[in-house]
Amino acid sequence: MRQIIIIGCGAGGGTSAQFARKTDRTASITVFEKGKYPQYSKCGLPYAIAGTIPDFHNLIEFSEDWFKKEHIEVSLETTVEEINIQKRTVSATKGSEHIEKEFDSLILATGSKPWIPPIQNIQKNGQLLQGVHVLRTIDDGKLILTQIKKGRKATIIGAGLIGLEMADTLHKKGMNVTVVEALPSILTNTLDDDMSAPVLQTLQEKIAIYTNHLAVRTDEHHGTISALFIKDIPTGEEKRIETDLLIIATGTKPETSLAKAVGCAIGKSGGIQVNEKSETSVINVYAVGDCTEYIDFVTSEPLGIGLGSIVVRQGIAAGINVAGGIYSLPAGVLLTRTSEFFGMEIAAVGPVKQGIKNIPLITGKYKGSSLPDYFPGREPILIKVGVHEETGCILSAQAVGCNAAQRINTLACAILGKMTVEEFRKMETAYAPPIAPTLDAITLACDVVSLKLARKRRGP
Amino acid sequence: MRQIIIIGCGAGGGTSAQFARKTDRTASITVFEKGKYPQYSKCGLPYAIAGTIPDFHNLIEFSEDWFKKEHIEVSLETTVEEINIQKRTVSATKGSEHIEKEFDSLILATGSKPWIPPIQNIQKNGQLLQGVHVLRTIDDGKLILTQIKKGRKATIIGAGLIGLEMADTLHKKGMNVTVVEALPSILTNTLDDDMSAPVLQTLQEKIAIYTNHLAVRTDEHHGTISALFIKDIPTGEEKRIETDLLIIATGTKPETSLAKAVGCAIGKSGGIQVNEKSETSVINVYAVGDCTEYIDFVTSEPLGIGLGSIVVRQGIAAGINVAGGIYSLPAGVLLTRTSEFFGMEIAAVGPVKQGIKNIPLITGKYKGSSLPDYFPGREPILIKVGVHEETGCILSAQAVGCNAAQRINTLACAILGKMTVEEFRKMETAYAPPIAPTLDAITLACDVVSLKLARKRRGP
Repeated sequence: MRQIIIIGCGAGGGTSAQFARKTDRTASITVFEKGKYPQYSKCGLPYAIAGTIPDFHNLIEFSEDWFKKEHIEVSLETTVEEINIQKRTVSATKGSEHIEKEFDSLILATGSKPWIPPIQNIQKNGQLLQGVHVLRTIDDGKLILTQIKKGRKATIIGAGLIGLEMADTLHKKGMNVTVVEALPSILTNTLDDDMSAPVLQTLQEKIAIYTNHLAVRTDEHHGTISALFIKDIPTGEEKRIETDLLIIATGTKPETSLAKAVGCAIGKSGGIQVNEKSETSVINVYAVGDCTEYIDFVTSEPLGIGLGSIVVRQGIAAGINVAGGIYSLPAGVLLTRTSEFFGMEIAAVGPVKQGIKNIPLITGKYKGSSLPDYFPGREPILIKVGVHEETGCILSAQAVGCNAAQRINTLACAILGKMTVEEFRKMETAYAPPIAPTLDAITLACDVVSLKLARKRRGP
Repeated sequence: MRQIIIIGCGAGGGTSAQFARKTDRTASITVFEKGKYPQYSKCGLPYAIAGTIPDFHNLIEFSEDWFKKEHIEVSLETTVEEINIQKRTVSATKGSEHIEKEFDSLILATGSKPWIPPIQNIQKNGQLLQGVHVLRTIDDGKLILTQIKKGRKATIIGAGLIGLEMADTLHKKGMNVTVVEALPSILTNTLDDDMSAPVLQTLQEKIAIYTNHLAVRTDEHHGTISALFIKDIPTGEEKRIETDLLIIATGTKPETSLAKAVGCAIGKSGGIQVNEKSETSVINVYAVGDCTEYIDFVTSEPLGIGLGSIVVRQGIAAGINVAGGIYSLPAGVLLTRTSEFFGMEIAAVGPVKQGIKNIPLITGKYKGSSLPDYFPGREPILIKVGVHEETGCILSAQAVGCNAAQRINTLACAILGKMTVEEFRKMETAYAPPIAPTLDAITLACDVVSLKLARKRRGP
């Protein structure tokens, strides 16, 4: 009987366990999870805090009972202390209990840990100051919820997807929200500056945003945060922002200590190197999710970005392969991604402009409508497409507006299929007056690129 | 100076004129249109009748003024009598005026005419009975609008997209609606029977539908329709349906009399044969739109189906090519199509099951949700995918539910890119709790096909 141990029961570990079971009905499958909950949706936390999802426990996608029925042993609140790769054993502790278990194959799904920027007086004895929070777990979410009070002041450091989702949540809860971002623009992992500019403008109507500002230190009152000092990076000018609640959303770092201990190769981005089968450099050791390093499909560069859609797909691959099946993912990740805040849907696929080096890129942008011009109720949709200047292949796309995510999925398919912008723009899209125009914005953005390409090829 | 004549100012002719102008700023471009209006959206007519679009004239997408500004001469209410292909002239009449004009190149955009089924006593002296209508033009729409009275009875023959769009419109207007369809199921050009069955069920909650029933004769009162007799095809049983208004939505036939007169080859489906450049078999004569024959991208079979999205793309090709540019469409049409009625969005791409002959087809179906299971407000989405059993390439897809059209666009891209179901199902789709689940229904439907394929390949 095959013995499989999985460390971590997040989306990566949980999915691995499920697909290992689907592939081998008799294998022994054990999952060690250091937290209190089995597989739940981390991405859903802002919506549970907002109350859109009525209870944090609704986020649990696969319960302990579910795993039990599938004969998968999930051991919660269990910390793995050591992996002995020669003896093929894992040693763990659960409370005072010591567990030692053998494995044939191991999956590391250890996730990532929040990165706390070097802000003076943000921690005390290794603990975040009262009122300062990260958002990684259900318990983080519950704690933040207790701190939310209508009319009080909340500050968020980091204007990425999670920072802005939390800004929306706290704004909906009636707090006065300020977002601080060190870079000159927002959403820099998702949108190019020209695409994020209109998003920023809409945000500024509802909350305060300081881009190009560094959080430098906090002020406190009886051990609880009372203000955040931020510094205007170009001018050096400091500003004090009164705050009752501070959320740090400045990204994460892969949790790789166990991987390093067993000798797994670590990539440039700091994540565990894995191949298309989710295998690490150590035989019979797999890794999935935020603890791994992704390779960009377009640039072949290593990436340190966590995305639920990728984690789940890696889990499928690892689960099948570890249990004797064969499953390979595409050579690199597309980074198809989306979010919604303050009524705006945004989505993207492929690298942002600053992520594309050594590739001659040509882009086109189109602002269209979700419906034909004569149809009432149409909503704006802004699309940008990036194309390889020599091959004409579509490399990236970004969207803000109506059904941005579904539109980006279509362009993701074009990127995966190595389709040229010429082929794509001639593709029939579904048309009906109450649904979409005859020429969708995705087509028209490609037309813009195509014209630019033709002009460039003709020369000056 | 290049002289271009276009016959017909529908979506095909109008688009041709626009792209001819974009390609050649100095050409003489003349459009002869027998109707009263310049380029307008025929597909929008049901929504103008419903009042969703407040005025029929809103449907005019490019006005006479617009064409004038572009130095395109549009001659309305003008009937082309003869084309002299040797002398390269077109003779036309506008009221009592006779027009004769030379051309270098000609575009036929003569559209189609409604097909009236052989129903006894439906016409008198070549005119439809009072209260009996087709829906092809703004004037048809205006006339139908005068006949709509709340609480009265309307019958529609034909349960295709237009028939059901009109059923929704008349139902919204408070009429008692009956739909009669000769085939055993509805929407047979768009959905397989198993996909249209749940749509039919929803419709039956709101209107009366008789499938497998043939309209055989009408009854009249003082020259106005009063009833339609329908016959149950399997049993032969007749039924009288009282009706104040009868809409015939049984499809169209390509209008090819001028094309035949100049010797253009006509295809099996009855439409003018054209190549990827929209050229007919006669040199310098192009054809676009509903008067042409389409070739199915998947089966290479001729098709007699009109779709606005294709018409516009043919117009782009013809307009560019006729004016000295070079533009080729893909080898065949995908038939990406969509509609919405009674709150249901449906969409499809590629041939329906009965349209696929001599290709070993394997299908998979998945009923999913628009959002993760834990997120409130999710809506159902039903997806079916058809795959070539030997090559694994995706050939067709159908969808009913949330964002059906945008989801089908993604699958259209996969078909155009000749992507296999294995490649497609591994593609990352955009995920965020308020937008879409980690594994979209388009992915999961492909997983179903993939499992079936694997089972088939393993053998019994």
